[in-house]
Amino acid sequence: MQRYFLNKVYEKQETIEVSGDVYHHMIRVMRMTEEDQVYLAFLNQVIVAKIQKVGPETVELIQMGTEEQQKELPVRVTIASGYPKGDKLDLIFQKATELGAFGLEAFPAAASVVKWDHKKRQKKQERLQKIALEAAEQSHRSYCPTVRLYEQQQELIATFSQYTHVLVAYEESAKQNEKGKFVQTLTKLKQEDSLLLLFGPEGGFSPKEIASFEAAGAQCCGLGPRILRAETAPFYALSAISYQTELMASLNV
Amino acid sequence: MQRYFLNKVYEKQETIEVSGDVYHHMIRVMRMTEEDQVYLAFLNQVIVAKIQKVGPETVELIQMGTEEQQKELPVRVTIASGYPKGDKLDLIFQKATELGAFGLEAFPAAASVVKWDHKKRQKKQERLQKIALEAAEQSHRSYCPTVRLYEQQQELIATFSQYTHVLVAYEESAKQNEKGKFVQTLTKLKQEDSLLLLFGPEGGFSPKEIASFEAAGAQCCGLGPRILRAETAPFYALSAISYQTELMASLNV
Repeated sequence: MQRYFLNKVYEKQETIEVSGDVYHHMIRVMRMTEEDQVYLAFLNQVIVAKIQKVGPETVELIQMGTEEQQKELPVRVTIASGYPKGDKLDLIFQKATELGAFGLEAFPAAASVVKWDHKKRQKKQERLQKIALEAAEQSHRSYCPTVRLYEQQQELIATFSQYTHVLVAYEESAKQNEKGKFVQTLTKLKQEDSLLLLFGPEGGFSPKEIASFEAAGAQCCGLGPRILRAETAPFYALSAISYQTELMASLNV
Repeated sequence: MQRYFLNKVYEKQETIEVSGDVYHHMIRVMRMTEEDQVYLAFLNQVIVAKIQKVGPETVELIQMGTEEQQKELPVRVTIASGYPKGDKLDLIFQKATELGAFGLEAFPAAASVVKWDHKKRQKKQERLQKIALEAAEQSHRSYCPTVRLYEQQQELIATFSQYTHVLVAYEESAKQNEKGKFVQTLTKLKQEDSLLLLFGPEGGFSPKEIASFEAAGAQCCGLGPRILRAETAPFYALSAISYQTELMASLNV
């Protein structure tokens, strides 16, 4: 069943009216008509709704029920990637959305090759937000992650204090066979904790960057003995977090 | 340091001689000369070697040491994807190699759209084997996974009995909130166990396919509450296996 994100808070109401992009997709793209059902994901609640009336610019729906299954990770995980080459951010943010990320961020790292001015960055951000929205719908999420592209690395570092934990995936840690920090952090996560994960671009982080992250409270960790590419490391981390906090937690192992 | 896979068994020897593709890459592409060092990954041992003499068609190297860090998953994991659309298998096999897969397989599923004849499949297999080789070198593996593209689904099913466990990632299991089977299997894995993981193409597996997998000894499992695309599910599974058998096992948690 098709899923639509409505960027507003759910309030108990007789009928729900939608217009704009959601209307266009429902009626023009999917050719839905009266009696068809959809999921409507509000900011605080996902409901099942049935189309009651199709107008020239709006659709009127009535609520049939609510979605009860928990679709979101019990912890809020934001990933921040050093700007990688080409269109790799498209892949990273699409997959990170499927894998449950709460926030999708990117920033200029020392080894980043791309240079985007304000206008280019703005355009890129809109495009990535659209990719995230489509991935959130497709993967049946109840929340669509927010995309944020930083101009300065310092802006990202300034957000560290907002998180319960900040971890940096560091290739040198992997090479030195550091295996403990990531597991230690994941096993002590509590419901509603927030986690920021930093990933380098191709070429990784410089020792100077690592020092400035650590000075701001971040900790380095290895993600196993193999060297993962810039786009693969976030998949690994998010999958492991889901495994630890959703699959394992449900069995109490 | 550059890494090369030599498709032969290591035997104690004075000097090692390489030619062909490896020679070409070392001397023509990387422009290496005497005294340069590389990793040579034999089937049973990875060594560090130094170039001693560059000939017109061969390079002579001497052994400097061995690589001691364990780079391979303690269990042998083979992934088998129902043929997905377009070039998605390129991405799946590249990432699965980085994430430690031992075998890379694909097969025609009921929902698979692509139809390849013998010649096309052969060509595709060679291309994918090359992608796997590059990814294995890049991610510092000691073993390069073998690619195998099946003509018939039945050929894949016939291999089930060779594995300690066979699991099928099934969307319906995820929808029904089945969370236990994957963790239960991973937590009881023993060193040298072998695991075959089946993933559907876009559109997933049909109930009939699931029944035939189960009849041959496979078990269905869910990979968390979100619906993962055909290419994302293998990343999730391999990352979780590494987290469980490499990171967690090292801490004895």
